[in-house]
Amino acid sequence: MCGIFGIYPHKQASRITYLGLYALQHRGEEAAGIVSRSGNKVYLRKAQGLVSDVFDEKTLVGLRGDMSIGHVRYSTTGSSNIKNTQPFYTKSRIGDIAIAHNGNLTNAVKLCSDLGEKGSLFQTTMDSEVIVHLLAHSPVKEPKEAITWAFKQLQGAFSVVLMLNDIMIGARDSFGFRPLCIGRLDKAYVLASETCALDLVGAEYVRDIEPGEIVFITKGGIESIKPLAVTKCASCIFEYIYFARPDSNIFGHSVYEARKNLGKQLALEHPVPQADLAMPIPDSGTYAALGFAQAAGIPFEIGMVRNHYIGRTFIQPSQFLRDFRVKVKLNPVKDILKGKRIALIEDSIVRGTTSRARVKTLRAAGAKEIHMRVSCPPLCYPCFYGIDFPTKKELIASKHTLDWIRDFIGVDSLEYLSLEGMLAAMPLVKDKFCTACYNDAYPVKPGKNISKRILERGSVYV
Amino acid sequence: MCGIFGIYPHKQASRITYLGLYALQHRGEEAAGIVSRSGNKVYLRKAQGLVSDVFDEKTLVGLRGDMSIGHVRYSTTGSSNIKNTQPFYTKSRIGDIAIAHNGNLTNAVKLCSDLGEKGSLFQTTMDSEVIVHLLAHSPVKEPKEAITWAFKQLQGAFSVVLMLNDIMIGARDSFGFRPLCIGRLDKAYVLASETCALDLVGAEYVRDIEPGEIVFITKGGIESIKPLAVTKCASCIFEYIYFARPDSNIFGHSVYEARKNLGKQLALEHPVPQADLAMPIPDSGTYAALGFAQAAGIPFEIGMVRNHYIGRTFIQPSQFLRDFRVKVKLNPVKDILKGKRIALIEDSIVRGTTSRARVKTLRAAGAKEIHMRVSCPPLCYPCFYGIDFPTKKELIASKHTLDWIRDFIGVDSLEYLSLEGMLAAMPLVKDKFCTACYNDAYPVKPGKNISKRILERGSVYV
Amino acid sequence: MCGIFGIYPHKQASRITYLGLYALQHRGEEAAGIVSRSGNKVYLRKAQGLVSDVFDEKTLVGLRGDMSIGHVRYSTTGSSNIKNTQPFYTKSRIGDIAIAHNGNLTNAVKLCSDLGEKGSLFQTTMDSEVIVHLLAHSPVKEPKEAITWAFKQLQGAFSVVLMLNDIMIGARDSFGFRPLCIGRLDKAYVLASETCALDLVGAEYVRDIEPGEIVFITKGGIESIKPLAVTKCASCIFEYIYFARPDSNIFGHSVYEARKNLGKQLALEHPVPQADLAMPIPDSGTYAALGFAQAAGIPFEIGMVRNHYIGRTFIQPSQFLRDFRVKVKLNPVKDILKGKRIALIEDSIVRGTTSRARVKTLRAAGAKEIHMRVSCPPLCYPCFYGIDFPTKKELIASKHTLDWIRDFIGVDSLEYLSLEGMLAAMPLVKDKFCTACYNDAYPVKPGKNISKRILERGSVYV
Amino acid sequence: MCGIFGIYPHKQASRITYLGLYALQHRGEEAAGIVSRSGNKVYLRKAQGLVSDVFDEKTLVGLRGDMSIGHVRYSTTGSSNIKNTQPFYTKSRIGDIAIAHNGNLTNAVKLCSDLGEKGSLFQTTMDSEVIVHLLAHSPVKEPKEAITWAFKQLQGAFSVVLMLNDIMIGARDSFGFRPLCIGRLDKAYVLASETCALDLVGAEYVRDIEPGEIVFITKGGIESIKPLAVTKCASCIFEYIYFARPDSNIFGHSVYEARKNLGKQLALEHPVPQADLAMPIPDSGTYAALGFAQAAGIPFEIGMVRNHYIGRTFIQPSQFLRDFRVKVKLNPVKDILKGKRIALIEDSIVRGTTSRARVKTLRAAGAKEIHMRVSCPPLCYPCFYGIDFPTKKELIASKHTLDWIRDFIGVDSLEYLSLEGMLAAMPLVKDKFCTACYNDAYPVKPGKNISKRILERGSVYV
Repeated sequence: MCGIFGIYPHKQASRITYLGLYALQHRGEEAAGIVSRSGNKVYLRKAQGLVSDVFDEKTLVGLRGDMSIGHVRYSTTGSSNIKNTQPFYTKSRIGDIAIAHNGNLTNAVKLCSDLGEKGSLFQTTMDSEVIVHLLAHSPVKEPKEAITWAFKQLQGAFSVVLMLNDIMIGARDSFGFRPLCIGRLDKAYVLASETCALDLVGAEYVRDIEPGEIVFITKGGIESIKPLAVTKCASCIFEYIYFARPDSNIFGHSVYEARKNLGKQLALEHPVPQADLAMPIPDSGTYAALGFAQAAGIPFEIGMVRNHYIGRTFIQPSQFLRDFRVKVKLNPVKDILKGKRIALIEDSIVRGTTSRARVKTLRAAGAKEIHMRVSCPPLCYPCFYGIDFPTKKELIASKHTLDWIRDFIGVDSLEYLSLEGMLAAMPLVKDKFCTACYNDAYPVKPGKNISKRILERGSVYV
Repeated sequence: MCGIFGIYPHKQASRITYLGLYALQHRGEEAAGIVSRSGNKVYLRKAQGLVSDVFDEKTLVGLRGDMSIGHVRYSTTGSSNIKNTQPFYTKSRIGDIAIAHNGNLTNAVKLCSDLGEKGSLFQTTMDSEVIVHLLAHSPVKEPKEAITWAFKQLQGAFSVVLMLNDIMIGARDSFGFRPLCIGRLDKAYVLASETCALDLVGAEYVRDIEPGEIVFITKGGIESIKPLAVTKCASCIFEYIYFARPDSNIFGHSVYEARKNLGKQLALEHPVPQADLAMPIPDSGTYAALGFAQAAGIPFEIGMVRNHYIGRTFIQPSQFLRDFRVKVKLNPVKDILKGKRIALIEDSIVRGTTSRARVKTLRAAGAKEIHMRVSCPPLCYPCFYGIDFPTKKELIASKHTLDWIRDFIGVDSLEYLSLEGMLAAMPLVKDKFCTACYNDAYPVKPGKNISKRILERGSVYV
Repeated sequence: MCGIFGIYPHKQASRITYLGLYALQHRGEEAAGIVSRSGNKVYLRKAQGLVSDVFDEKTLVGLRGDMSIGHVRYSTTGSSNIKNTQPFYTKSRIGDIAIAHNGNLTNAVKLCSDLGEKGSLFQTTMDSEVIVHLLAHSPVKEPKEAITWAFKQLQGAFSVVLMLNDIMIGARDSFGFRPLCIGRLDKAYVLASETCALDLVGAEYVRDIEPGEIVFITKGGIESIKPLAVTKCASCIFEYIYFARPDSNIFGHSVYEARKNLGKQLALEHPVPQADLAMPIPDSGTYAALGFAQAAGIPFEIGMVRNHYIGRTFIQPSQFLRDFRVKVKLNPVKDILKGKRIALIEDSIVRGTTSRARVKTLRAAGAKEIHMRVSCPPLCYPCFYGIDFPTKKELIASKHTLDWIRDFIGVDSLEYLSLEGMLAAMPLVKDKFCTACYNDAYPVKPGKNISKRILERGSVYV
Repeated sequence: MCGIFGIYPHKQASRITYLGLYALQHRGEEAAGIVSRSGNKVYLRKAQGLVSDVFDEKTLVGLRGDMSIGHVRYSTTGSSNIKNTQPFYTKSRIGDIAIAHNGNLTNAVKLCSDLGEKGSLFQTTMDSEVIVHLLAHSPVKEPKEAITWAFKQLQGAFSVVLMLNDIMIGARDSFGFRPLCIGRLDKAYVLASETCALDLVGAEYVRDIEPGEIVFITKGGIESIKPLAVTKCASCIFEYIYFARPDSNIFGHSVYEARKNLGKQLALEHPVPQADLAMPIPDSGTYAALGFAQAAGIPFEIGMVRNHYIGRTFIQPSQFLRDFRVKVKLNPVKDILKGKRIALIEDSIVRGTTSRARVKTLRAAGAKEIHMRVSCPPLCYPCFYGIDFPTKKELIASKHTLDWIRDFIGVDSLEYLSLEGMLAAMPLVKDKFCTACYNDAYPVKPGKNISKRILERGSVYV
């Protein structure tokens, strides 16, 4: 998972990109980068860390120019490496290229191998570098034609923001897996993964880039082409369930309302009539819990309080303090929980271990009954389009029954929202979504060696 | 404001103190320190920064021994200085002393001046150093007698945790301004400002230290004396309103429930019949808003979403982005707010500028009507007992009418909870509280030169 | 200028490389890097800074394996950039390649441009990357053949240490501009720019790599080929004059003795009969001054004492203290200088400004007469083979007469060693040297656009 | 050992103090500090590290005012602690006091204990704090009288620079153990441990402060009093032998010349007729070696070359590389040493282990005979006046014969300069020196518990 942003032309381009990335920080906490352009000069800054760590006043002043793109990167096991930060920048025979990419190419290994045989040297394991090498081998040098030629050869998920000389380009793959929207700020166009980034920089939402669409932004305005054959829209439903910020609109609709609707639908499908209160597992379950409580007509309470000081540098205490990690993030409010029957709302269950720990804490704080309700169906299949789920083996629902999971987590009852219920609660018509992680219906087949590239890379920065 | 913690005797004393301070971080973000004791050796670590920045595995291992006390410090203008970190430690003729102090002595300037004339050299501007110099001048050397002799000369607010050789001491002034409770973990006694610290370290709540009480904790157990004349209990009501964590019990009662009660009382006193929804200004108004919504029977919504990545290193954007600081912390959820009539719940109003900015943001997001309800009376008087309010001049309610403030903040209506309503919502009987910041009823007169000491200190660390 | 080092096979390969680089630190203070190899895995660490800053115990432990090469880099204006650190590492169709390069290719721009048209993307402005791209385009994949094919296309100066899969390779261009020697440590072969690196790691000197020679080091031993046509030996004489460490042997001979010989020759050509003492401008003039004093039979004194604490972080004082930078490095010893007639020995004069400042300081300390003697001829021409001289314009001797320079520097007399004298003092026969910086006799013509590559690169890391 | 500096009144006071400390860095590498004064405000900066690490442009700008004193501190085992940095600053009943101290009080324990009984709290283990506490207990408040009263109670070695409100004070104990001189820069007076600091800041040397003298520097000028009874001058001879910089004058005479004289005397007393060359163990033996070579009429050579990059962060290589630490600092020049008979000049021998390692290296480089000559007598007794020698036990000459030491070090012959020879080579008449470390003739008896104070301090910063 990643977040991408771009703006052109604006005098404060890099500063606005910084703010945009700040708003998109939840899409990637591992690394951040900005590339800007002034005249024929390109300025870069990227590093591991949060946006607020990577940039300071001095670096922002140094990132000159009126065009700027940025990227925040999610941690993926094994490739946590300074070189694997974006945007990826290079000079090439068709000009200066910088690219920020969100998604996962399913034919990257094949492309990589073909290009390597032609003498290409890869510096990173990122899909974005593959795209740039393709561009450097384009049979045509004219920018828009080269872009089109290269994008036609990509398979899988890609929402990208790209600088090619004095053109800023935005594009989504033909399935529209990942979000990307267009905004307007003064005379500039803005590209962003989610609308919360537009809100923060004060830009007005214009529209989403459509699946298979490429937009070219120049000083003269915006131009759109749709050279990629669109067979089916398959927007990632998990963005609504968990990933996007609640105050964003994605794929054209409010995430907050989608989540509340999921909670309402859940109250209809799987009510907890005896519950004294409904409470979320913070923060992601909050909005579904609000919907559940309103639909069920029971009080909404914040039964666990989040510690705002959790940071990356926190020291693990030794074993004598069991369940410490759980407690330090969320402290149960005993007076609220003691003797109560609770409808506990989760957004989703991946491995089940976190849910189990939370439930244990609630029991210790005196909860009498705990009825867990999950606002999506069981997660059973991995994602090949950019969500960093664990392997199928590790997804608890892929190999255990509902009863087993209920007992493992330690709740009095456990119910998942149905696939139909989930789709009914969504703002889009149901065939617009990719739901492969729930029902194995992959819109595009992944290449066989999807993860081979990373594994065969034997270099380690120390 | 500060948070204090102590534990003795426990093999993991400093590590548990670290966790206790972590739970009390909201009481002071400026600096943190721990002093521990093993045999006759004393170990210290204190520095500016958050608890998680100041300590790491290595420092915790270095803080040896079975006795440990700790402190987190709130930023106070003008004295943000590495020397002004606590615990304050020194050798003296009565032995090794380390002290962590929460509160504000009203006769510190007088004590300081008298001691200086006797040849005492002050290293800091902290009340805790004054207490230690007093101890070093005690006419009696026996620890308990020296402690009693010294504490009898202190005026104002002090909750302290103190190490004197192999004794750990906890004490509250005779008015009981600041909280301090006793817990039990294995065979050790724990002292903490709030119960959330007991929860995190897994300690069991025993009782609060009483106003005017001093407890001496040794390996043999706990001993209590009450040498300080108690005229009146005057616990700080603002701890319930704003300062303490919602998941804590202080002065023996739940903060969460107190805040919900304030919200319910507010809904009775000042309903907003036409409201479509009730929402808090996060995070402090959340619990009063829950109470308000439940009492009023209207939906509770989270109309502004908090950004979890706000850190200390954040760069100020230039002026072209107005209201940025407000937006970056809390982003309004447009789809929830558009066209709505809102009951907006604040816990308190100090200068009014933050409320004003929030309201502006809500208007921009489409809110139709905004009715602000404040869960305490107007703040009109400064605090001399440890809450870092601005001067009287800067308290908006001390010089402006309700109508003026309503217009300044920009809401359609504005109402404060009454003093009687506030006290009625409290878990304690009403004459147990200090409400001086609301009604000028100071339990103990401040010294004339309360702030002179800091001003006359002319040394600056660069 | 750069220093290079390699060792294979040795269990402590990276640690020994670290020590080797430490010994070669004078050849490049800007950046340092090590690449090691264990099994099929490659480990990297490179960064800007001194060797002792770039590596610590943890990084050395992380640099696993029995093959290791390293590089220290000299600062060159305009390309001081984290990406421009060596060794340069990449995967390619012929295998894993890492390279450390000392020298300057004269046809790099042409090679770069040809490769770019074939789709190659350049990450850096370093010659070493050009060599690797060439290797990736080799028509043959067999390692030794590919190496030979690529090296045949290089023009200019290159001493390189290279890892290609499980082979370590050392090579010098056919003119032998830069030094590179072979040593033996236990069962391992060592490659190093100077023998001081062999001394420090305890390796035994075997021989120099010959001009135009390539050696392949495997676990089975060492193999040598000489595929590059050798027309003339042109070893850099400036390595003896100034650059190499006095305790090294380069091109097979002692630098210390060469410098003493230069001083003796200087005393013969340009004696200072009236001198009370001979002193160097430390540290580089020390050995020539020793030779001068011995040949002239006058006392050798250390008239200026070097401050050992000069570091990179030193703050410039404001203008009120003139000549401060000069004084802080070298303080004159007044009692030694007062009223004396001095033979002042310099190794070489580049811009003349430093010499001028030193002389001024000596005058202020009371020196009566100062007769400067320079242990090489006037520097008049730039170097295209790796010495970072300023442009011709900035070389004081390229545009001024001896008298003018004498007056500029402010000495009573000034004499340079003659070209013949310099060559006579050298341990090798005279036609083995490149003396182009003195007499314009460039052994190989530089490409026209020698510096264009760097200039046209418009990207800046901030 | 420490270095001290002060200047008043000068607009660039702190910046000049910074430069002065820079020149005195060899007197203490552990910590550095500056205190300045502007109006009634005092500015401080002190920290562990070299002068160039502790200060930067920003801190120097922050150290405002026209009066400034500074201190560099030598590492002493067990008290390496941020609190034990100087200058020590405090407010007191007689005013603002800051003090920088060089030397060692022999009655500090007694003073400390008396003051503690009066209620004084000690923050550090430094003699300078003791002096300040004394000042705060002065029966008279008038500054000059208080200073005189306090200094009269001190025993042992103290050269101090002190700020007391708007007066800068310099003083030396009545024996004159440690150096302290007065200089003039513009209209300001400068105080410095050695004249090399005057040289660097461009100040003119005026005179040394005399033993037992106190000078008071105000805007009006300088005033001198001599209230301390002077019985005997006992300046530290080891400052000439080893400690001071060769380009300094101390106690009124040139260190460089003193060292050369020691070498000449050594050549007379203990010639090495068969020697091919004389060489120093760098850097401290260099000047004696020059004198030796000149007196003996044999060539002076630099047989070991010093590595200029030795820094604090250097990593210890593992044991497989024996003698590495020795080699990394000084690399022998084989071509100079091979087959040679060497007169090897040492300034002094403390434990003998370093000399032994050097000799081993020279043997390995091919030296045929090594005749060590030491430019002072055997060191047999500890110093109680500020030189950080090891205990008597560890001084090799205190328990072993000349023959034993010769064999331990591994030289062919070993001779020390005689006590009479050493004194004869000195610029002062011989009864002006403290030579206790050579002949047990302590001018003032140390207190019994000289080191108890440090030991009984049980606090540790982690």
